[in-house]
Amino acid sequence: MKLLITVRYVGTRYCGYQVQPNGPTVQAALCAAAEALFGFPCDIVGCSRTDSGVHAECFCATISRRGEDYLPTNVPVERIPRALCRHLPEDIAVWGAKWVPPSFHARYDVLEKVYTYRIWNRHERDPFLADRAWHYPCPISDAQFSAMRDAAQRYVGEHDFAAFMAQGSSVTSTVRTVTAASVERQGDLILFRVAANGFLYNMVRIMAGTLIAVAEGKIAPDEIDDILCSRDRNRAGITAPACGLCLSQVVYSPEFCI
Amino acid sequence: MKLLITVRYVGTRYCGYQVQPNGPTVQAALCAAAEALFGFPCDIVGCSRTDSGVHAECFCATISRRGEDYLPTNVPVERIPRALCRHLPEDIAVWGAKWVPPSFHARYDVLEKVYTYRIWNRHERDPFLADRAWHYPCPISDAQFSAMRDAAQRYVGEHDFAAFMAQGSSVTSTVRTVTAASVERQGDLILFRVAANGFLYNMVRIMAGTLIAVAEGKIAPDEIDDILCSRDRNRAGITAPACGLCLSQVVYSPEFCI
Repeated sequence: MKLLITVRYVGTRYCGYQVQPNGPTVQAALCAAAEALFGFPCDIVGCSRTDSGVHAECFCATISRRGEDYLPTNVPVERIPRALCRHLPEDIAVWGAKWVPPSFHARYDVLEKVYTYRIWNRHERDPFLADRAWHYPCPISDAQFSAMRDAAQRYVGEHDFAAFMAQGSSVTSTVRTVTAASVERQGDLILFRVAANGFLYNMVRIMAGTLIAVAEGKIAPDEIDDILCSRDRNRAGITAPACGLCLSQVVYSPEFCI
Repeated sequence: MKLLITVRYVGTRYCGYQVQPNGPTVQAALCAAAEALFGFPCDIVGCSRTDSGVHAECFCATISRRGEDYLPTNVPVERIPRALCRHLPEDIAVWGAKWVPPSFHARYDVLEKVYTYRIWNRHERDPFLADRAWHYPCPISDAQFSAMRDAAQRYVGEHDFAAFMAQGSSVTSTVRTVTAASVERQGDLILFRVAANGFLYNMVRIMAGTLIAVAEGKIAPDEIDDILCSRDRNRAGITAPACGLCLSQVVYSPEFCI
């Protein structure tokens, strides 16, 4: 059996999730913690590759002995989260753990992921959200906000999201199914939540940047449909900053949920 | 006229509010920003001296030209917050500014201050609250929580709070009036809010540590009355960590409120 864990992290200090030579990554921190706890090198497979500065409220990853599809350990599964936490820095924590079959794959078996994009919409910056939200200082009126909501609804459904993918990415298909999208105000904070069976590179950040273009009147809500059809990245809005993005939920088949 | 400003800061990186030789302080950052904006050295007088690691949602301070009780400037008052923000680090922001008479004193004219103490009460640590709440991992039951509420009510009123003051402090009087105290749950977070006409050194942190001693059954809620009467610091609970403390509100006479 492999171990499936849920991980919560503040991405600010990291060069993204995935191991890379030029800076600290969440995967490298998890690898080091797993090796310290279990006493041998481990493979960590994550549910997605979050970018530098992106956060996660609930990231999922599997741990197995390096090169194997199982994890030999006598540590009771309910004690593993806290035991791993002892070997992790303050900005990463493991909240849950569960045994899953060797065939389980943390990325390929994802049914749905939910991202939250946070926009701090007030003239003054908020030091408590400095690395946790996009500061968009111009006040968004109720009419502008309602246009954003309308636009967000147009993301829902099975579409070719090529216009909402960073240029230069290569994937076999750019078709994804967005199952839900909402925009909500919580005081001066605007929360854009989007659920899909998969996301293209920078897709949520481009969707968020496009919603701001809608608020600014540069894109009409019903133009979203045309932009989707056009498959033209240049017609969508800017790529909103990484700091506003957070992976909020990862859905697997019920038997794998922690 | 002096300028009264409201300041919001994450205290983690600072050796407290007040200027000191051995590390960065909020006051020093405000001094530097004021000098950069106005073009001459300034005096910054704060509403209180928060400790190292303590946060503020709404700190108040006055700015005047060094050695004077006025601030000569042509910058319109409504533009000053954003202008100061440009000279401040990401973890400090100025949210408001108002002219006040030369006789106004940011500390002596305070009528009431409100502090919030945050306790993260879940086995797992929360990376998003690492420096913003006290991690108390043992689950607090409803009965224990209700004892904490009962105890908190006993802080309300005019009392001698000597038992809730760090040893070695010197003040003329240890009598303060607590006007309100509440304990509330928000999911896994416990918020202790307390309002008073003034606070002794470490008073809120000792009050919070004492509430946890009540949850643990080490102190009965009605013992709070005896502890107050005893004036004995050793009878109260521990000094809870600085990171959980936040200055939430500062009240002046209505004419000085921003």
